[in-house]
Amino acid sequence: MPQGQPLVVPDDGLTTRQRRNRPLVMVHTGPGKGKSTAAFGLAMRAWNQGWKVGVFQFVKSAKWRVGEQSVLEHLGRLHETEGLGGPVEWHKMGSGWSWSRKSGTDDDHAVAAAEGWAEIKRRLATETHDLYVLDEFTYPMKWGWVDVDDVADTLASRPGRQHVVITGRDAAPRLLEVADLVTEMTKVKHPMDVGQKGQRGIEW
Amino acid sequence: MPQGQPLVVPDDGLTTRQRRNRPLVMVHTGPGKGKSTAAFGLAMRAWNQGWKVGVFQFVKSAKWRVGEQSVLEHLGRLHETEGLGGPVEWHKMGSGWSWSRKSGTDDDHAVAAAEGWAEIKRRLATETHDLYVLDEFTYPMKWGWVDVDDVADTLASRPGRQHVVITGRDAAPRLLEVADLVTEMTKVKHPMDVGQKGQRGIEW
Repeated sequence: MPQGQPLVVPDDGLTTRQRRNRPLVMVHTGPGKGKSTAAFGLAMRAWNQGWKVGVFQFVKSAKWRVGEQSVLEHLGRLHETEGLGGPVEWHKMGSGWSWSRKSGTDDDHAVAAAEGWAEIKRRLATETHDLYVLDEFTYPMKWGWVDVDDVADTLASRPGRQHVVITGRDAAPRLLEVADLVTEMTKVKHPMDVGQKGQRGIEW
Repeated sequence: MPQGQPLVVPDDGLTTRQRRNRPLVMVHTGPGKGKSTAAFGLAMRAWNQGWKVGVFQFVKSAKWRVGEQSVLEHLGRLHETEGLGGPVEWHKMGSGWSWSRKSGTDDDHAVAAAEGWAEIKRRLATETHDLYVLDEFTYPMKWGWVDVDDVADTLASRPGRQHVVITGRDAAPRLLEVADLVTEMTKVKHPMDVGQKGQRGIEW
């Protein structure tokens, strides 16, 4: 892919370098494949730059994305043992958030999702990570477990240089408003259509 | 994301397990972000399953995807030193294919692209890898450097259990025909539209 050129150079008082390095809110939405996969690809790249990566999975099942989790945890270990890349934290709702005392016992996903977002807000305020992967985070917003306006306002006013990528279908318009980069993944053809179910190594 | 159920159960004489484990041809196309990123996310997942991963980058610049290359090479090293995951090979056209004697001297991208595809054909015939990432491979086909029908026929008749993911805009209809999974990445909103150029850690 050739390197792009901006269509317009905005009159925002920033230098090209300042503008280039503005932190991004990215949303991967739509019904197609690759929303989470691309977000974890971003996390790889961020790790390689030495960035502090925090992954927050808003999913019920603890088994979801085990492949990516395993890889990013190996990368986090390479950071600890050899000083390569950046540190990695991986938190998931499915088995109870690791920072929560109610770990493993909380069956109320609405409460768990709200707890997850509250923790992310604290981390954004203290600039804990350089890249936040909020995987499947559109769903708690869709289902009213997490307030979309609170998310949008928090993201729009976050301090420092923190990048955030949010994945999931049906991203709310208010979220797209504050996003810098929105990609919609559209399903053109899928093996499920011809009766083939997901398989190890491809889907997880 | 909930686990999907096939809409139809085909009358193809295969068991669910056989059908599930059929190797896939996947195409990530469209003008949006995440085509290559999602493919490299797939490569992470494949590595974690112990699969043999082969990446072939059909790009001119040797600097492209350095982040992903670095990460996958670290993972490949974890395989060699600790037996974790699978082996990784990363080849790119930009600096001359590593198996070619003309390395670094070939300025004819059409010839280099044809050489790359010829090598991939040989590897597919001998079942060298479990996952092939053919990054930006739609372009050599679009520009006529590699014959689309040859690619389609070769993929459709490849032996064994070899998965192939091809990325790039403007995938040819003939390629989409033989693909099992096609995702189109659509640009909804991009920082370039408001004058922000690509940045380290996000774009590379």
